[in-house]
Amino acid sequence: MSVQAAAIVPTLPGRYYCDPAIYQLENERIFGRLWTCVGLAVALPQPGDYLTTELAGEPVLVVRGQDGELRAFLNVCRHRGARLCTEPCGRLETRVIQCPYHAWSYALDGRLIGAPNMRDAAGFSPAAFGLVPVPLACWEGMIWVNLQSDPPPVESQLVPRVVERLGDRETFERYRIGELRIGASVTYDIAANWKIVVENFMECYHCAVVHPELSQLVPSFRAGYAYQQGIGATFAEGVETLTLTGKRTRPLLPGLRPEDDRKYYGLVLLPNVFVNLHPDYVLIHRLEPLGPGRTRVVCDWLFAPDVVESPGFDPSDAVEFWDLVNRQDWAMCERCQQSMHSRAYVEGGIFAPIEAHIRRFNDWVLAQLGESR
Amino acid sequence: MSVQAAAIVPTLPGRYYCDPAIYQLENERIFGRLWTCVGLAVALPQPGDYLTTELAGEPVLVVRGQDGELRAFLNVCRHRGARLCTEPCGRLETRVIQCPYHAWSYALDGRLIGAPNMRDAAGFSPAAFGLVPVPLACWEGMIWVNLQSDPPPVESQLVPRVVERLGDRETFERYRIGELRIGASVTYDIAANWKIVVENFMECYHCAVVHPELSQLVPSFRAGYAYQQGIGATFAEGVETLTLTGKRTRPLLPGLRPEDDRKYYGLVLLPNVFVNLHPDYVLIHRLEPLGPGRTRVVCDWLFAPDVVESPGFDPSDAVEFWDLVNRQDWAMCERCQQSMHSRAYVEGGIFAPIEAHIRRFNDWVLAQLGESR
Amino acid sequence: MSVQAAAIVPTLPGRYYCDPAIYQLENERIFGRLWTCVGLAVALPQPGDYLTTELAGEPVLVVRGQDGELRAFLNVCRHRGARLCTEPCGRLETRVIQCPYHAWSYALDGRLIGAPNMRDAAGFSPAAFGLVPVPLACWEGMIWVNLQSDPPPVESQLVPRVVERLGDRETFERYRIGELRIGASVTYDIAANWKIVVENFMECYHCAVVHPELSQLVPSFRAGYAYQQGIGATFAEGVETLTLTGKRTRPLLPGLRPEDDRKYYGLVLLPNVFVNLHPDYVLIHRLEPLGPGRTRVVCDWLFAPDVVESPGFDPSDAVEFWDLVNRQDWAMCERCQQSMHSRAYVEGGIFAPIEAHIRRFNDWVLAQLGESR
Repeated sequence: MSVQAAAIVPTLPGRYYCDPAIYQLENERIFGRLWTCVGLAVALPQPGDYLTTELAGEPVLVVRGQDGELRAFLNVCRHRGARLCTEPCGRLETRVIQCPYHAWSYALDGRLIGAPNMRDAAGFSPAAFGLVPVPLACWEGMIWVNLQSDPPPVESQLVPRVVERLGDRETFERYRIGELRIGASVTYDIAANWKIVVENFMECYHCAVVHPELSQLVPSFRAGYAYQQGIGATFAEGVETLTLTGKRTRPLLPGLRPEDDRKYYGLVLLPNVFVNLHPDYVLIHRLEPLGPGRTRVVCDWLFAPDVVESPGFDPSDAVEFWDLVNRQDWAMCERCQQSMHSRAYVEGGIFAPIEAHIRRFNDWVLAQLGESR
Repeated sequence: MSVQAAAIVPTLPGRYYCDPAIYQLENERIFGRLWTCVGLAVALPQPGDYLTTELAGEPVLVVRGQDGELRAFLNVCRHRGARLCTEPCGRLETRVIQCPYHAWSYALDGRLIGAPNMRDAAGFSPAAFGLVPVPLACWEGMIWVNLQSDPPPVESQLVPRVVERLGDRETFERYRIGELRIGASVTYDIAANWKIVVENFMECYHCAVVHPELSQLVPSFRAGYAYQQGIGATFAEGVETLTLTGKRTRPLLPGLRPEDDRKYYGLVLLPNVFVNLHPDYVLIHRLEPLGPGRTRVVCDWLFAPDVVESPGFDPSDAVEFWDLVNRQDWAMCERCQQSMHSRAYVEGGIFAPIEAHIRRFNDWVLAQLGESR
Repeated sequence: MSVQAAAIVPTLPGRYYCDPAIYQLENERIFGRLWTCVGLAVALPQPGDYLTTELAGEPVLVVRGQDGELRAFLNVCRHRGARLCTEPCGRLETRVIQCPYHAWSYALDGRLIGAPNMRDAAGFSPAAFGLVPVPLACWEGMIWVNLQSDPPPVESQLVPRVVERLGDRETFERYRIGELRIGASVTYDIAANWKIVVENFMECYHCAVVHPELSQLVPSFRAGYAYQQGIGATFAEGVETLTLTGKRTRPLLPGLRPEDDRKYYGLVLLPNVFVNLHPDYVLIHRLEPLGPGRTRVVCDWLFAPDVVESPGFDPSDAVEFWDLVNRQDWAMCERCQQSMHSRAYVEGGIFAPIEAHIRRFNDWVLAQLGESR
């Protein structure tokens, strides 16, 4: 049997990371078509709680209804187009979505329930002027919306990714993300294309160089192996979780099994989520593309409810560790972005054998855009 | 006879408020063709007094001549293109417009009167290198300019609007705007398309919701009626003018008749002026479109000359009231602008019956652009 | 013989100074094809010393090699495209260009000498992944690079300009620019097209108006004559060099002849350098176009080595004088830029007879762009 060396794998050409036309196509065919995560369900516990965001340029309002259900709408009054909610999040104490311009009012399920002076408008049907609904699904505690009118089930998009990555569905489900609470959040504004951020997360070829602290805690990362199917990354001798000290100050997450004790799993849920599973906390990165060369990343650190509620709860050991790793990564992403327009990168670069799996992500992008190499 | 309810009236589609190509077309066919107000004549009392502005992207210089006449020119030296005057307004003490680059000099009527070292230029005719003139007309104290070379009289554009709005010409003329003085000025920078600002001024459907102070002074505004032809809006019992207290601290404007005593008239002079007539002062809003989603509004409060010159003259009661109302309006305009690009507004919104007259403004815009619904 | 007066000479139309498409064409056909100066060799004395810049949108790294030679490369890692050096200048103490993302390492001559984990990549040839070289030449102490792969010799571009301007090559060479040292540097950011800055430097029609201090020192400048072939500009009686006092506090530059004693020579080396020769110092302006309406200008004041090294060396008399003149010029350049889009300048302006030589620069630009009048 002959040993066959890994082939050299080309990256996407540079224009895919900086051309506004390609960015627009991605908004249309990726973020305008796929289920995309816009936040965590636990952040909106009560009826009337809402968040606002932009997805593929569309203003989206997510609000929890009287019946406890989350729903999404375009955040636009049907009368004259005023933006309805302008804060990133909040609570509608009146449980009515009222436009501040002319007081058109919508129930939390989007029905138009008040429109002053419209009684004498011939043929005006309030039912035709409810808020424009956007399909929404909760999956593992994450709120996913879809700008298509009749999308496939969210599971059909996400579950195969989990199985592909972890080998089964159960490992992921053991962490019961939907039952955890947010202990801390940090938002980053990165001068890089969202795909550079994804590619950075997908490989650990850079870990020994860029992340000395992380590499010390996870020996396989120091060797560059971040993406072996199924196994997860085992901590170094004496390391208990990913914190600056490597020590764990909280109990295992409820539901974990002994074999999860000293492992880290990282996975990408395309198009815009990274999930980081640790014995005592979960970290979720959510990407919001803001332009061809700009991406917002929102990080939420999740803990067991009793941990968050305990007196003196302090998530800073987990936050500080990943904030350090994140900033190390963003600096590299921004360096790459700077050269994407150069003739030196017209045909892209190459992936090392240890990064070759990223080619699948690149091919996925091309397939979404209806293109091929 | 059957009672017929008002029909539902669609607004312009969202792209008319945010598409750069439509904005450019408006600059060409509306602000590049029509008489447009660029300031008040009273602001330039002496020969050599000037103001500068941009109209449809063109730099315009308005200057009062030796003969007392106002004239407008493109604010560009004919030699190498240097901008001649760079301040928003000022006085040319030398009564010469001299370019600071090579000292080419123009008389206040635009003639080239000095061009060093040009004597030995074969065929050089100073007469061919005067400033490029822009048609200018004063009407009711307002300075109107027109970027066409041979425009129709300014009255043909403005007088029909006044008659259409107030029923006659005399009501308007009684306020003798051209004889008033500026008591205060405020400039606003609004993140909204100029047409949204016009539409906002045209309707009072929003008054009860957005303007509690104004609605208290003018009962018909609380009911939403702002645009009844001819009659003007009558103040509430005990209200004397539009100030925060509703009290009037100044005499009636000279020339007014008893029936003007307790009335407010608001009218739009397309493309860019709102006139607000009160018993004791006049407020003029002048719009300068700065981009598809940005408009500067300059407000001038005008009073009788003897009032402005009286010791202790204080316009703040009038200024503070309208500044409050203005800011309430701009906030709503900016909310609308934010959603103009949304698929929820691709076909626009609807005007309530009480706003239906705005349709005429929208149709006017389409007609100017050479388009129809 | 009949005396023939100078003709009126039209400038380039305004769009050449503000149209992004023309700017892009210039980047392609002027700055992307010609030798362009990116700095001074004396600024990079040691192996490992580098500077970074952008030329026609391309990130360029200039570095001095182990062998003492200067070389230029595209400043882009061949692996994933990370920008290699991000500071404007510095010293690579390790004498290796190492990418901070995955530690790919290049020798100072551009060879790939380290690429972790690439040993098992089938068919990977380090020789194929060296830095992309950019032709570089030193000429008279200036570093010139060329984005073409096989450009003609740098002398073929520059020497004819010197001879055309000064009548011979020797006058220029007497100043031995390559042996001087940098005594001071100032960088300016100007809101004007690079060609306006060139045209401003080429004529002294504006000197009497804009530069009273300079005109006092150089009588021919007061008269507007800046560009007579060969002769140079002679200082006024009692003036020794160009400083605020007109006095010279340093010896003549080594190599100068008695006839250079009281003369100033200014010349343009297209596309982007102005050289100013004085008896005791040389000033070099280097232009970096940053956009259709924005240009960075870097000024370096050069002195004899023993002068720079002498205790108490103070270049401020030369710096303050030219900084004053520069700022006077930039203000005029910015005034012109403001009106380039106006209909008043659609067909451009005119050059006075005293400026007529600038027509040759304009024709040169058109020839580079493949256009003609």
